[in-house]
Amino acid sequence: MAKSKYYGRDMITTMEWKREELEDIIRLAREMKRFRYSPRFDNLLHRRTFMMFFYNPSVRTRQSFEAAAVELGGAAQYLVPEAMRLKSATTAGETIEDVAKVMSRYAVGVGIRRLEDKVSYYGEGNQMLREFAHYASVPIHNMADDKFHPYQGLADIMGIMDRLGENLKGKTALLSWASGALARSWCSVQEFAIIASIFGMNLRIAYPEGYDLDPEIMNFAKSQCEKNGAKFEISHDPVKSYEGVHVVYSRNWVSPNAYKNGVFQKEEEKKKAASYSKEWICSAKKMKELTDNAIFTHPMPIDRGQEVEDEVASGPNSIIYEVAEYRLHTQKAGMALTMSDLWDEAELEALNLI
Amino acid sequence: MAKSKYYGRDMITTMEWKREELEDIIRLAREMKRFRYSPRFDNLLHRRTFMMFFYNPSVRTRQSFEAAAVELGGAAQYLVPEAMRLKSATTAGETIEDVAKVMSRYAVGVGIRRLEDKVSYYGEGNQMLREFAHYASVPIHNMADDKFHPYQGLADIMGIMDRLGENLKGKTALLSWASGALARSWCSVQEFAIIASIFGMNLRIAYPEGYDLDPEIMNFAKSQCEKNGAKFEISHDPVKSYEGVHVVYSRNWVSPNAYKNGVFQKEEEKKKAASYSKEWICSAKKMKELTDNAIFTHPMPIDRGQEVEDEVASGPNSIIYEVAEYRLHTQKAGMALTMSDLWDEAELEALNLI
Amino acid sequence: MAKSKYYGRDMITTMEWKREELEDIIRLAREMKRFRYSPRFDNLLHRRTFMMFFYNPSVRTRQSFEAAAVELGGAAQYLVPEAMRLKSATTAGETIEDVAKVMSRYAVGVGIRRLEDKVSYYGEGNQMLREFAHYASVPIHNMADDKFHPYQGLADIMGIMDRLGENLKGKTALLSWASGALARSWCSVQEFAIIASIFGMNLRIAYPEGYDLDPEIMNFAKSQCEKNGAKFEISHDPVKSYEGVHVVYSRNWVSPNAYKNGVFQKEEEKKKAASYSKEWICSAKKMKELTDNAIFTHPMPIDRGQEVEDEVASGPNSIIYEVAEYRLHTQKAGMALTMSDLWDEAELEALNLI
Repeated sequence: MAKSKYYGRDMITTMEWKREELEDIIRLAREMKRFRYSPRFDNLLHRRTFMMFFYNPSVRTRQSFEAAAVELGGAAQYLVPEAMRLKSATTAGETIEDVAKVMSRYAVGVGIRRLEDKVSYYGEGNQMLREFAHYASVPIHNMADDKFHPYQGLADIMGIMDRLGENLKGKTALLSWASGALARSWCSVQEFAIIASIFGMNLRIAYPEGYDLDPEIMNFAKSQCEKNGAKFEISHDPVKSYEGVHVVYSRNWVSPNAYKNGVFQKEEEKKKAASYSKEWICSAKKMKELTDNAIFTHPMPIDRGQEVEDEVASGPNSIIYEVAEYRLHTQKAGMALTMSDLWDEAELEALNLI
Repeated sequence: MAKSKYYGRDMITTMEWKREELEDIIRLAREMKRFRYSPRFDNLLHRRTFMMFFYNPSVRTRQSFEAAAVELGGAAQYLVPEAMRLKSATTAGETIEDVAKVMSRYAVGVGIRRLEDKVSYYGEGNQMLREFAHYASVPIHNMADDKFHPYQGLADIMGIMDRLGENLKGKTALLSWASGALARSWCSVQEFAIIASIFGMNLRIAYPEGYDLDPEIMNFAKSQCEKNGAKFEISHDPVKSYEGVHVVYSRNWVSPNAYKNGVFQKEEEKKKAASYSKEWICSAKKMKELTDNAIFTHPMPIDRGQEVEDEVASGPNSIIYEVAEYRLHTQKAGMALTMSDLWDEAELEALNLI
Repeated sequence: MAKSKYYGRDMITTMEWKREELEDIIRLAREMKRFRYSPRFDNLLHRRTFMMFFYNPSVRTRQSFEAAAVELGGAAQYLVPEAMRLKSATTAGETIEDVAKVMSRYAVGVGIRRLEDKVSYYGEGNQMLREFAHYASVPIHNMADDKFHPYQGLADIMGIMDRLGENLKGKTALLSWASGALARSWCSVQEFAIIASIFGMNLRIAYPEGYDLDPEIMNFAKSQCEKNGAKFEISHDPVKSYEGVHVVYSRNWVSPNAYKNGVFQKEEEKKKAASYSKEWICSAKKMKELTDNAIFTHPMPIDRGQEVEDEVASGPNSIIYEVAEYRLHTQKAGMALTMSDLWDEAELEALNLI
């Protein structure tokens, strides 16, 4: 029985992992995809519990994390804040210290999801995860917060490599804002900027004026591009930004003015987004005429007809379903690497994970 | 490792399965009852996930499907529509195509429950299941919709055979409307009419004028009865309909006028049901004086005192608890046959399931 | 394959178990703690389902019971009353007889939690558990009702023995009322009084006038103390009551006047509690100056700053996290002893459990 070199580590964002480390996760995820349900991996979390703490409801994240725990021989618990009764600024309740320390006795890891509409300012969700991680003695896995969504980034890059190969140097990813009726978080698109830049892609980020993302994360992505000899560009042109790109990631996100008096302005953000030019859509025409036969990706749920045309989303260059599937495999890999003490030592050595 | 001849098939209603096929399921269910928790069957869904998508809350259905997945070596996820955020006529959201395709990546099968009060017209729930089945690459299992409830039907007939023997030719089942304060769906009673007629029983359906069931399903049942040389009768007499029967299934159901302007009229239906003669109850007196020592069945929950008298429901001729248990065994059988690729080939051959 | 001598037994309160029997559970819990996830215990509930029925939300209880079922090789289902549709004084629905009998077909045991704010008078929650136990053919495990909380008591005493040794004769436990903003149940403190007295401790119960606990349970504790040659005292002094004690259990509880017209007066109880002297807190000063280097325990969630000072709750003499962990181990032991038919006979003999 052995542990990987990543045993005990949190996964808050891929920003805090090196490229080689992320490649380790993806390599293992590929093995786990190929040998799904196999005895090689089906007992790594034997009888162990993974706690999933959802401030926000979730489709893919919940389904894939729960299935991941089961496929590794363990189980996941679905927890919601209504039952947790945490202390807040206005209500009596339990401290995160107490909750995190007790959970660490029952579980081998904790996943947390807390998005922009469940906090009173940008970054508060991520801050809570870090407080949890501070007090917990088991790894914290980010199931999407208001800044980051690490396994979505890992799944994106794994899906892209399937089509463009492992060496992404010289390939250009367009991360484009889109209209849409769902007032989306920054977490997925920011994580994509992070991981695409870590993996050496040229990064072009296109959005209407007034939709800047987190400058700290943009600076990180820019510096990664520079380090890798790749281009980092900002564009405000919904059409020209498509020129010559190999990957299009088209998604709505809210503006930096989304909070007023500590309240997330969902309806206002939707209204504002709807007022923008219809050209901020990923159309079949732009894909065909401007890109280098680009593949299309998206973290889902897709607002079809607003973020992307059906012809693209369901077309042969769309990798959305593979990427959704890769959430499962990357999470299994991340969970097994950080939480399992039941690895076969030879297996870890063969995979260079010890 | 082998698959049964039913691998990949949906279970939407028993109407779409032949009698021999349904007998295969019941035969396997009997084996699974006898060898519960045994190594013969306890790994057929090894580490696999079954998704349960509940538009309506559920007691037996949820408990038995979740236990079934676990007893087969897998696990079930409990999903509700509030977390799924599907597109609807009035709200932005995700398409069933996207949801079904992604779920097919995570799970080996999906169960769906959507009853009459969660749709805007009769049949819409079933339509949604069929749309799901169209896009999913894994089997869809009907956990009760507004038309059908296949595993309830299978459990009913299995329970009846326990008492009356495998050959039901010449035996008469009375399916009788009853008053009751819960405005019941058509799904269970319609499925019973279907499966009782497929298995060769004489079928007598009794209800007050104005409580006709789905004519398409009634026609199917009638034609099955004719094919089998069995009687098919409609009665509006709450007393005489009990004469000479071997099985009584007494249950409330709503009228065909339950929808107004796309809204299910629950309160109105309850009121209407309450206005009918108190004779529409399965009484101990009728059971004793009129039937041929009939057994009593019901899909539960029972509205005791309205649908049936306590003395009958808890009496020696009541098979309600066995039938409830058989939900588990028939579901295990159906799930293993349609979803498992881990059968022992010799086992399948011995059971004539390959 | 064998069963323990406790097979089939309910766990409603430790009052109904003898000291030697409770020692058996704790001894097994220690083994299970030491050999967690080990093959000795990891299949005792192989593929079996444990139903958890929560009228009240829960943190530790839910997490530890669900993990316990998984660690024993089974699974737990999370059920809520909204989905169960039980009959009540005012609504149509299913009888407890029907629910309990059906659940007994699907599961090997049922846990129920129903606290004071989900009933209309003190004791109604416990009464419901006993009705369930009457009809169920599988063991009922109390996950906290309005009178008792047996596994909290077992965990408390196990944690105390860790620090004070197995022989608690001559050791004094102070069970002290505290202010607090959460209007707490009597179940945990009453269970503590029961089990501490069974295990031979001197018991001192301190609270403001008007906060008497259940006289029947107080009489039981008193008689146990007498039988064991131990002291049983009631005090109304928030300071002097700390003198010379070895264990401090400081917690808020509601007054005996908490129900008015069948409704639990939560807000009124909170207001009343807040009006009491600030001295009703477990302070570092009292712990240091008055007690015999006492350990601090509490069932959590803790209202820090009201029930106890941070310095005590997070200090070296606090056993709150161990006790929380012991919930898991005692529950695993209780579940395996009452619900498993898969014991190795030699194992049971070695542990003197057959």
